[in-house]
Amino acid sequence: MSSLTRFGISMDSRLLDRFDSFITEHGYANRSEAIRDLVRDRLVQKSWESGDEEMVGTITLVYNHHQRELTEKLTAQQHDHHHEILSAMHLHLDHHNCLEVLAVRGKVKEIQRIADQLISVKGVKHGKLVMTSTGEGL
Amino acid sequence: MSSLTRFGISMDSRLLDRFDSFITEHGYANRSEAIRDLVRDRLVQKSWESGDEEMVGTITLVYNHHQRELTEKLTAQQHDHHHEILSAMHLHLDHHNCLEVLAVRGKVKEIQRIADQLISVKGVKHGKLVMTSTGEGL
Amino acid sequence: MSSLTRFGISMDSRLLDRFDSFITEHGYANRSEAIRDLVRDRLVQKSWESGDEEMVGTITLVYNHHQRELTEKLTAQQHDHHHEILSAMHLHLDHHNCLEVLAVRGKVKEIQRIADQLISVKGVKHGKLVMTSTGEGL
Amino acid sequence: MSSLTRFGISMDSRLLDRFDSFITEHGYANRSEAIRDLVRDRLVQKSWESGDEEMVGTITLVYNHHQRELTEKLTAQQHDHHHEILSAMHLHLDHHNCLEVLAVRGKVKEIQRIADQLISVKGVKHGKLVMTSTGEGL
Repeated sequence: MSSLTRFGISMDSRLLDRFDSFITEHGYANRSEAIRDLVRDRLVQKSWESGDEEMVGTITLVYNHHQRELTEKLTAQQHDHHHEILSAMHLHLDHHNCLEVLAVRGKVKEIQRIADQLISVKGVKHGKLVMTSTGEGL
Repeated sequence: MSSLTRFGISMDSRLLDRFDSFITEHGYANRSEAIRDLVRDRLVQKSWESGDEEMVGTITLVYNHHQRELTEKLTAQQHDHHHEILSAMHLHLDHHNCLEVLAVRGKVKEIQRIADQLISVKGVKHGKLVMTSTGEGL
Repeated sequence: MSSLTRFGISMDSRLLDRFDSFITEHGYANRSEAIRDLVRDRLVQKSWESGDEEMVGTITLVYNHHQRELTEKLTAQQHDHHHEILSAMHLHLDHHNCLEVLAVRGKVKEIQRIADQLISVKGVKHGKLVMTSTGEGL
Repeated sequence: MSSLTRFGISMDSRLLDRFDSFITEHGYANRSEAIRDLVRDRLVQKSWESGDEEMVGTITLVYNHHQRELTEKLTAQQHDHHHEILSAMHLHLDHHNCLEVLAVRGKVKEIQRIADQLISVKGVKHGKLVMTSTGEGL
């Protein structure tokens, strides 16, 4: 079980005023929570840059399901990576366009390679990889 | 029904060599598809900056579900925005940590506000908004 | 003259351990300074998104000065915006390639428009806009 | 001397219409130049991710020169890296705040380490690293 540490920080009053407005606007309960979010976000970014840890990502794809053989290709690629791709969510945006979100877990390089391969499939109009964390140690 | 237009572009041979390596590495079928992806990505980014269109986003959250009242708060906030939040996918990363991905549709400012509010909830360790498109006109 | 405020924040010990490693690695003197940097960076980003304030940016351009009429075009464009472009630094990277960095001050939309126009000039191989601040209130 | 290659690409007419508007708005001379810019930007980004090549960066710093010992520290750090830091431009934004832009050349990791060290100095309010290229092969 991990414990809570309390420590003091100092900040210029004008900077603190601006930060307090930011906190209110974003709906944070207090300064601690807002600062923890900034710290965690910076550490997650750092982990993705160093590339050594096991990370979690989500791959967002928008595609036209009428494109010939697209669904088969996407399904085949996902099966090739069934160890890393944990789950998928599919939405019908309109008659032609689908939104698909995949949750992926693995090494940074591997997650990026899977994302590159899916985004490059013909008929996939837009794709983005979000890099997050297993939550471990955050 | 929209039609296909063909046009020529010129590129320095050395730049084209490097681009061809990029295309092979990412698994693109041909130059057209790789260029269309770059163009679509730039246009989606532009639409998010201008902020006038209806867009689609996904919000990725990692949180500790043992945090007191967290699940209730997240559920309440999602219900407050049931017009915009289309769907959710939930994964259990370990005993404590969950991954949740929400698909959201609406005006840029509104999607960003919903993301800010969810990410700021205490117990949410990390959150990211991906900005994509309805696929319309891409 | 603005004064210094001191306040306490709490953080999970494991998160704090990781943050302390980050602080050491980046060479921060203490936690306060690292946290202030995260806060200031987030506020600068927010100001650029809202777009109302007067901001400062730097535009980095890499170009081939042998490209016909390029230097003339870049100079002409810079003169068109002499109210916003404060200063320029020029470096010769090799026989062909130059690095030019411009410091720009103005409204967000105006700075972005100037950057777009310079980056789109034929012969400019790469360009990036960095969005920073006048330092006022940070 | 490197030569020019011409090739054809196909694009959905609606997508091309949107791209043509983008081209006009940004002031590109033609589609070729706009596409080359997208390609070069993607390749530069890729080079920075792979981290093997010699690259060029600019480090933008905003700081309060009244901060005790700040100027000495920044100068000392810049001298420690005189092989990588090619040049500096300094501007007085107001009575307190300075803008300094450094041009840096070296391996990705080294440029990032120099940027981290400069940005973490107390009194530096904001800092950003822009990653660009020597222009070679673009």
